[in-house]
Amino acid sequence: MGQLVECVPNFSEGRRRDVIGRIAEAIRAAGARLIDVQADAAHNRMVVTFVCPPDQAVEAAMAGARSATDLIDLRRHQGEHPRMGATDVVPFVPFADLPMAVCIQLARTFGARLWKELRIPVYYYGEAATRPERRELEKVRRGGFEDLAAHVNDGDRLPDEGLPVIHPSGGATAVGARIPLIAYNVNLKTTDLSVAKEIARTIRTSSGGLPNVKALGFNLSERGLVQVSMNLTDYRVTNIWKVFSVIREEADRRGVEVEESEIVGTIPLDAATRTICDAVLEPAFKMDQILEKRVWAAE
Amino acid sequence: MGQLVECVPNFSEGRRRDVIGRIAEAIRAAGARLIDVQADAAHNRMVVTFVCPPDQAVEAAMAGARSATDLIDLRRHQGEHPRMGATDVVPFVPFADLPMAVCIQLARTFGARLWKELRIPVYYYGEAATRPERRELEKVRRGGFEDLAAHVNDGDRLPDEGLPVIHPSGGATAVGARIPLIAYNVNLKTTDLSVAKEIARTIRTSSGGLPNVKALGFNLSERGLVQVSMNLTDYRVTNIWKVFSVIREEADRRGVEVEESEIVGTIPLDAATRTICDAVLEPAFKMDQILEKRVWAAE
Repeated sequence: MGQLVECVPNFSEGRRRDVIGRIAEAIRAAGARLIDVQADAAHNRMVVTFVCPPDQAVEAAMAGARSATDLIDLRRHQGEHPRMGATDVVPFVPFADLPMAVCIQLARTFGARLWKELRIPVYYYGEAATRPERRELEKVRRGGFEDLAAHVNDGDRLPDEGLPVIHPSGGATAVGARIPLIAYNVNLKTTDLSVAKEIARTIRTSSGGLPNVKALGFNLSERGLVQVSMNLTDYRVTNIWKVFSVIREEADRRGVEVEESEIVGTIPLDAATRTICDAVLEPAFKMDQILEKRVWAAE
Repeated sequence: MGQLVECVPNFSEGRRRDVIGRIAEAIRAAGARLIDVQADAAHNRMVVTFVCPPDQAVEAAMAGARSATDLIDLRRHQGEHPRMGATDVVPFVPFADLPMAVCIQLARTFGARLWKELRIPVYYYGEAATRPERRELEKVRRGGFEDLAAHVNDGDRLPDEGLPVIHPSGGATAVGARIPLIAYNVNLKTTDLSVAKEIARTIRTSSGGLPNVKALGFNLSERGLVQVSMNLTDYRVTNIWKVFSVIREEADRRGVEVEESEIVGTIPLDAATRTICDAVLEPAFKMDQILEKRVWAAE
């Protein structure tokens, strides 16, 4: 089996089923394997996960972007999620042993084509960022389409690819390279939302908690629980076991029990084996000890 | 990718490198993929792990058995490990989603050919056993080659395939079907061997401990540690996290710390995801959430 890259484009459409289907189909028809298509009506946003050989990834992402540019008009788009483009965010993610350098190269090639072929200006983020202050997607995207339309000519908002002219209906696109994110929640046996909010504040990086953790507290009122909802942005630094253990300690201290946790969507095998290493004090456990990995990876 | 079966034949040779190499090569040349070849001089025994499509598995196992029958004479074999055949034990193990029924059928087909083509009588064990008292390999193999030579005509020792005449140099073979075994050790920060022995006794099935656990206590004298060494014979019932937690509790109670644990060799992905489920209270986590599983299994 040759090397593969994962790509997780986010498009600003989560309501019109035909549009969602046509964008996903365009990517599939370009030769990619669709792993997941998730659409969220409240956020009015869809997230496609596809996998393909690196030399087909740019074409597949372009097929999705062309379709989204034809079908989505951001001037009429409303939704809870911050966004600045019809094709809003396109990260290239290493699959298995693919080097990050390949993903950065794919991001740059794709970004150049977005401007050249579709006249969509591009901001590089993550490992593909051209300046440190653009590594964080949130900073690139702040204010969204409407704010960018007014400020695209400001020195610190100038795009990395293309002229400072946002596409009238398609906006601009953030194109990046990053390792896989892990969406992970821990649910607590209390109806007291402040417990979840306090613990989220204690563990998140931005308040001085654990590195590479974003965390918020939510109510799960119909279940009588509260939730610490997280994104682990580098599982090699802070893994599932670590945040679970710290949250359980913090909950214990407040006299609250952990009901359960939830791994949302997919995680890389590497994150699973690292979780086991930490949970059972097995520092030497490796992906190659997973029987299926040995067999499948050798295909 | 089509379905695959794993097969883990054990042969009674762990010292002569040329013999070890020729048996492994015979299996490979028959079209199987060798995953692992381990030879142990003290036990004078080798264990081959191979994977192939089910319709090639019997031929590959036969190639190994033919080679072992040519090259090994049990009348001159000495070693610490109990054994009754040159080709001693041949379990067929489901890989990924392969049904156990397929493995049982492969075991029976292979067993019939062992007798027909090589005149080696066969005892079925595990899921392929023909009587309840033969499910446990230890009971089938008790006394080994020498004892079996004297008692193969006893009513309860009659083979499942072939006449009650053991092969003069090759003995008899146990052929079975089973789920993957997990070899797992927990090392404790003490030099007091009795701690490991007591904990092993507390957790092993045969002394009324946890189900599907075999456990012994050992000294790791050069490291100043003791070890609880285990075989988990059904990780779906008792998994790595469970034995780790129970051993840690038992060690705590004796004022001893866990230094580390060791997962020996390979484990199936299913065992890894179940370990995570138990460790972080995530009952819904499934193998399909491992990104590589989704991609590779769909090939």
